[in-house]
Amino acid sequence: MDMDFMKRALEISSRGEGRVNPNPLVGAVIVKDGRIIGEGWHEYYGGPHAEVNAVRSATEDVRGSTIYVTLEPCSHYGKTPPCAELLRAKGFRRVVVAMTDPNPLVAGKGVEILREAGIRVDVGMLEKEAQKLNEIFIKYILTKQPFVIMKSAMTLDGKTATSEGESKWITGKESREYVHRIRNRVSGIMVGIGTVLADDPSLTARTEGGCDPVRIIVDSRLRIPMTAKALHGPGRTIIATTEGYDRNRYEELEELDSVEVLVSGKPGSGVDLKHLCSHLGAEGIDSVLLEGGSELNWSMINEGLVDKVMTFIAPKILGGCESKTPVGGDGFPGLDDALVLNGVEVTRFGDDTLIEGYVKRGDNDVHGTC
Amino acid sequence: MDMDFMKRALEISSRGEGRVNPNPLVGAVIVKDGRIIGEGWHEYYGGPHAEVNAVRSATEDVRGSTIYVTLEPCSHYGKTPPCAELLRAKGFRRVVVAMTDPNPLVAGKGVEILREAGIRVDVGMLEKEAQKLNEIFIKYILTKQPFVIMKSAMTLDGKTATSEGESKWITGKESREYVHRIRNRVSGIMVGIGTVLADDPSLTARTEGGCDPVRIIVDSRLRIPMTAKALHGPGRTIIATTEGYDRNRYEELEELDSVEVLVSGKPGSGVDLKHLCSHLGAEGIDSVLLEGGSELNWSMINEGLVDKVMTFIAPKILGGCESKTPVGGDGFPGLDDALVLNGVEVTRFGDDTLIEGYVKRGDNDVHGTC
Repeated sequence: MDMDFMKRALEISSRGEGRVNPNPLVGAVIVKDGRIIGEGWHEYYGGPHAEVNAVRSATEDVRGSTIYVTLEPCSHYGKTPPCAELLRAKGFRRVVVAMTDPNPLVAGKGVEILREAGIRVDVGMLEKEAQKLNEIFIKYILTKQPFVIMKSAMTLDGKTATSEGESKWITGKESREYVHRIRNRVSGIMVGIGTVLADDPSLTARTEGGCDPVRIIVDSRLRIPMTAKALHGPGRTIIATTEGYDRNRYEELEELDSVEVLVSGKPGSGVDLKHLCSHLGAEGIDSVLLEGGSELNWSMINEGLVDKVMTFIAPKILGGCESKTPVGGDGFPGLDDALVLNGVEVTRFGDDTLIEGYVKRGDNDVHGTC
Repeated sequence: MDMDFMKRALEISSRGEGRVNPNPLVGAVIVKDGRIIGEGWHEYYGGPHAEVNAVRSATEDVRGSTIYVTLEPCSHYGKTPPCAELLRAKGFRRVVVAMTDPNPLVAGKGVEILREAGIRVDVGMLEKEAQKLNEIFIKYILTKQPFVIMKSAMTLDGKTATSEGESKWITGKESREYVHRIRNRVSGIMVGIGTVLADDPSLTARTEGGCDPVRIIVDSRLRIPMTAKALHGPGRTIIATTEGYDRNRYEELEELDSVEVLVSGKPGSGVDLKHLCSHLGAEGIDSVLLEGGSELNWSMINEGLVDKVMTFIAPKILGGCESKTPVGGDGFPGLDDALVLNGVEVTRFGDDTLIEGYVKRGDNDVHGTC
């Protein structure tokens, strides 16, 4: 029974996807005598917390009831008063929490307030699921760096395009729909200038009611054409370039209100990607979907900036020793140098297969405890 | 109940793996009053059929009982008398058959004999499973061409080796053990000379009690060193070359009893792979596991000689725009030209994922009906 209510809380928490960043997704379910009498979730950035919405929605007095909440109730005065205080004041008998809040401002203090008030608190139910749901929030709150997901679509022989460069579409409808759902969940989408020049993608989320993530284009010399769709879609575009940029193009781009040009890196050495990611983090961009091409992917991997890898695999063979693969560049020289993923999951999407996993890292490995 | 007995028949049929080629795997279960009273399988090439072994093993009189057999009982005098006759003579009441025999010498005649004798015959139970189990036999009996399985091991970014050529091992222990089981099931293992020069593989099955498949090496100029392990393992080696071969090496190879050199193809145009496959088929080799490298894989794919693709994917990223992928060569120019697989199955082996499927073909598509 407990588990079912927490599952429900996790389920409704995901309704906030793409609207709460860089804050966490949270769901709360209030149960009295084995019946759900209230539900709420964190609906949008800066909006009331899940606990508040759940209490407001309650169809009867919550006194003496149990609340299931996917994240530890907050203990600090932020945009809203602390939820731990609210739960105490409302007379809840028991609080079940999936995971403690990694936010150093909370980090167990919410649980402490409740326990000191004599409320029974159980922590850790469906913790792994809750951590996965908030993988973006966990990294961002601890590091102020965006959580980077490298997403690729390839054939069963590792190709992202044919020998002549055709890449639309490697994977099927179901895979592409899921990618749009992920785009809706992240704050930014990053591509290299090669991808812009080859495919002219609009880089929008394209799901009904979804927010459009910031478009981030890595373009060391500002080769982007002024007609590129990515410059004119809804929402902002950040173009990262080096000091070797094209001066005329720079001036033209500066005239566009929705475009920001970030100069970062010496001419010839490529965009300073670590600096770019720190800049994105400072701007509140908690997550980036990295969509290639293979050279940018390699640079991001090699700089240690990728947190999660998602590869969609279509059951097709293309061949071609010159055809592009998801990750190019110099590559790691030895197998012992390979980037190894953990927490691997495999999902079918129509005829395609998604294999996803997390980059193993010594420090800052938020999934080490999952 | 019916289904359980047929499952059991399929299960025991696989005990003949690697010992019956180019004949089919067959299992038979005899049931009386809901109890199994006899079981048998086709144990080795030329040995008694499954039905004969099941009848011999019966612990009581089979008269009036039901026999579950994975393949239609034979109707012709081959190495053994027809099983349909045996079942009739023994007084079976009912015969349940998973699939009819694609062998044109049988093809429904076994069922006919039984029905004419007044025995109830049900055909088609777990037919798909039975067809998959005998995919090699079905192709070979109809075409006298080997069933070719292209097997690769790659990273999640499509690499079969690092940028410096290191490839041992991309995948984990569980995957490699399963590959040895497949090697045990096929009649031949094919590699290109590049793989022999790079890795010096012994190309044996290496499972306890397993038969060693014939090693087939495609080597257009006979560059194989006389010390190559593949020349000295147990069993035979066939080396396919062109008229441009090295005369000295040819003479040295001819002195080895277990080595056959097949000259097929003009100098400079590569080995004639279609001719090679026909030659293998004529020699009774009903199945070939194609293990690369990427150029040979492309040639086999491009010539339409591959029936099944098995790709093991390790959750690692290697990068490298020059790193090898499973299929090289020129590649297909457009996405519409891609080789599309059907009947796709996904299986986890430890940390790795196996994606396998069958090549869609207009003619000779034994899996079109699955």
